[in-house]
Amino acid sequence: MNLKKPNLLVLTTGGTIASKDSSEGLIPAMNGSSMFSSINGISKNYNLTVKDILHLDSSNIQPEEWVMIARHIYEAYGQYDGIVITHGTDTMAYTSSILSFMLPNPPLPIVLTGSQLPLSHPLTDAADNLRYSLAMASSGICGIFLSFNRKIILGCRAVKVRTTGFDAFESVNYPYIAQIDSSGLNINHSVLPTNNGNPAFLGNLCSDVFLIKLTPGLNPKIFDMLLEMQYKGIIIEAFGAGGLHFIHRDLIAKLSKLTELGLPIVISSQCLYERSDLSIYQTGQLALRQGVISAYDMTTEAAVTKLIWALGQDPSLSAVRKVFATNYVGEITL
Amino acid sequence: MNLKKPNLLVLTTGGTIASKDSSEGLIPAMNGSSMFSSINGISKNYNLTVKDILHLDSSNIQPEEWVMIARHIYEAYGQYDGIVITHGTDTMAYTSSILSFMLPNPPLPIVLTGSQLPLSHPLTDAADNLRYSLAMASSGICGIFLSFNRKIILGCRAVKVRTTGFDAFESVNYPYIAQIDSSGLNINHSVLPTNNGNPAFLGNLCSDVFLIKLTPGLNPKIFDMLLEMQYKGIIIEAFGAGGLHFIHRDLIAKLSKLTELGLPIVISSQCLYERSDLSIYQTGQLALRQGVISAYDMTTEAAVTKLIWALGQDPSLSAVRKVFATNYVGEITL
Repeated sequence: MNLKKPNLLVLTTGGTIASKDSSEGLIPAMNGSSMFSSINGISKNYNLTVKDILHLDSSNIQPEEWVMIARHIYEAYGQYDGIVITHGTDTMAYTSSILSFMLPNPPLPIVLTGSQLPLSHPLTDAADNLRYSLAMASSGICGIFLSFNRKIILGCRAVKVRTTGFDAFESVNYPYIAQIDSSGLNINHSVLPTNNGNPAFLGNLCSDVFLIKLTPGLNPKIFDMLLEMQYKGIIIEAFGAGGLHFIHRDLIAKLSKLTELGLPIVISSQCLYERSDLSIYQTGQLALRQGVISAYDMTTEAAVTKLIWALGQDPSLSAVRKVFATNYVGEITL
Repeated sequence: MNLKKPNLLVLTTGGTIASKDSSEGLIPAMNGSSMFSSINGISKNYNLTVKDILHLDSSNIQPEEWVMIARHIYEAYGQYDGIVITHGTDTMAYTSSILSFMLPNPPLPIVLTGSQLPLSHPLTDAADNLRYSLAMASSGICGIFLSFNRKIILGCRAVKVRTTGFDAFESVNYPYIAQIDSSGLNINHSVLPTNNGNPAFLGNLCSDVFLIKLTPGLNPKIFDMLLEMQYKGIIIEAFGAGGLHFIHRDLIAKLSKLTELGLPIVISSQCLYERSDLSIYQTGQLALRQGVISAYDMTTEAAVTKLIWALGQDPSLSAVRKVFATNYVGEITL
C-alpha cells in the first residue's frame, strides 16, 4: 500500500464556486483554503497547497488572465503531482482550450473545475466537482482537462451547453476522458492525449481576433470595418457544414479580398455538434477556393483560442494555415 | 370513413432535399413535382399542389426570401388544408422562426422540412421527412412547425445542432410538438400553440441587426463601429446566464451609452440549452441596470428574427422592449 499522499497544487481564480451573495448578486468572495476546509477528508487523502491567484467572475477572465494562469501552472512544474484550477463556468471552456495550446506536453495532470452553485449553497455541486478534480489531478495522466458533473473532458473539447443544469459541460466531437462512478475514476485509455515533445510555455497571444456568428442577410461591409479596426484574424460560425450567402450580399467575394490581403479567415459551424466540411456544397466549395481555412470539428472555443494563439506565434497567413492543418492536443479530427 | 383527401400546398425553395451533384458540389436542381413522383402512395392519400418558388441553397435564403415565402403562404390561406415548405437545413430554423412572427394566427398547419441527404441518394432521409410533413400538414393543428427525423418542432424553437446526422434539429427549451412512430403522429396537445387573433401578414422587416457571439477580451469599440454602420439593433450571445466582461475592456459602460442613444441591445446566452437570467450574477445585474433586454430562454434564431421583425413593426426602444417582454408564439417562457 502506497502511503504517500498526492502532492497537489490548487489555484483559485474566483467564479461561482467561490461566490457569496451580495446586494449586486453573486460575486466571487471566498478564499481557497476555506473552500477546502469545508469538505471532509481532503487532508487525509491529499497534501494540498492552495494559492488564490484571482478573484474574478469568469466573464472577466480574458487573455491577460490566461497568460497569468498559464505562468502559475508552468512555474509549478516539477513540484507537484497534479494541479487543480477552480474557475467560473462561463468562460472555463475558453480557458481550458487556450491553456491546451499555451502549455504543450504538460508533465502532470492539470484539471479545471468550478460549479453551478456556490460551495456554501445547500444543493451545491461544488464539493463533488472539487473531489473528483483532485482524483483526476492525482491520476498521473498528463494533459489539460475539465472536470464537471462526474465527467472528465479533454480541455480543448469542452463546451458549456447549459446555463443552470449541473450537467453544464459536454465533450463535443470527442469521447469523455473519464467518468466517475462507484467503481472509481473510469479512464478511457484509448482517447488520452499523447505528449510528443518537451513541456513549454508558449505565452505569446494576439487578441485581435473577431468571431462572427453568421445570420441570414449579414452585410459583408462588416469585414471592411474589422480590417479598419486592425483585426488580425476572423472566425466565422457559418451555417451547417460551412454555408455562406453569396446572392444579394456576396460574402464569398468579400472573403476572397480579405485572404488576398493575408488575413486568416477560419470557417467553423454554428451547429454545436459534428464537423464543418466545406467540400460538400457549392457555397462551401466557393469559399474554400478563396483560401478560407476550415475548422473541421473543432469547437468554437478551441477555434477562437487556437487562432489567438497561432497569431501570437507567427501572424503570417501561411503559418496560421499550417497550425490549423495540425492536430496539437486532440482539438481536431483530421 | 372520410374519403376526402387532404388538399395540401407544397412550396419548394431548394436545399439539399432537391439537390443534385455538380462539378461544384451539391446544388439545388430538382423540381418539386419530380420530388413527389418518386415517393410511393402520395397521390392516393393527398391532393398535392406543388409550386417551385425558389431554387436556393438555404445559406442564400435571406430577409428578401423570407418575405417572398411568407407572402406565398399568406396568399394560400383558405384554399388548402395545410402547407408544406421544403427548404435547405442550414437556415431552416431562422426561416421557421421569422415566419412564426410574420404570420401570426395561421388558420392551417404550416410545416417546414428538408433533408440531410438528397432525395436521389440511396440512404436519403428525404422521403421520410416529406411523408411525415404531409401527415402533420393534414393534422388540422394550426401553427408553424419544423418536421425532421420523425419529430415535429415548434417553428420558433428549432435549432440545427448537427451538421451531418439525420437528427439535425432539436426543439430547444420546449417539448416536441409531436413524435411519429408506428402508432402514428403522437401529438403532445398540452404544448400546442394557441391562436389569439386573426391571421395576418406582418411583413415589414428591418435587417439592420447584428449578432455578436461574445469572446473573452472582445474590444468594446466594435459597438461604435456598429453604430456608424447604422445598425438598428444588436443581439449579444453572452457567457453563461448572461455574463459580459467589464474589467480591462468595459462592455457594460459601452452598452449603457448605446441604450441611452435608444439602440436596443438584447442579451442571450451562447449556451445552447436553458435560459439566460441576468439577475443572478453581478455582471448580469450591472448590464440589466443599463437597460439591456433579456432574451430569457429564446433560441438565438428566434431572438435574432424577433428583433428583425420587431424593428420592422416599430423601431423605438420602448416598442422593442415591449415585444421582447411578450410571448407571441411560444418562443419565450416568461
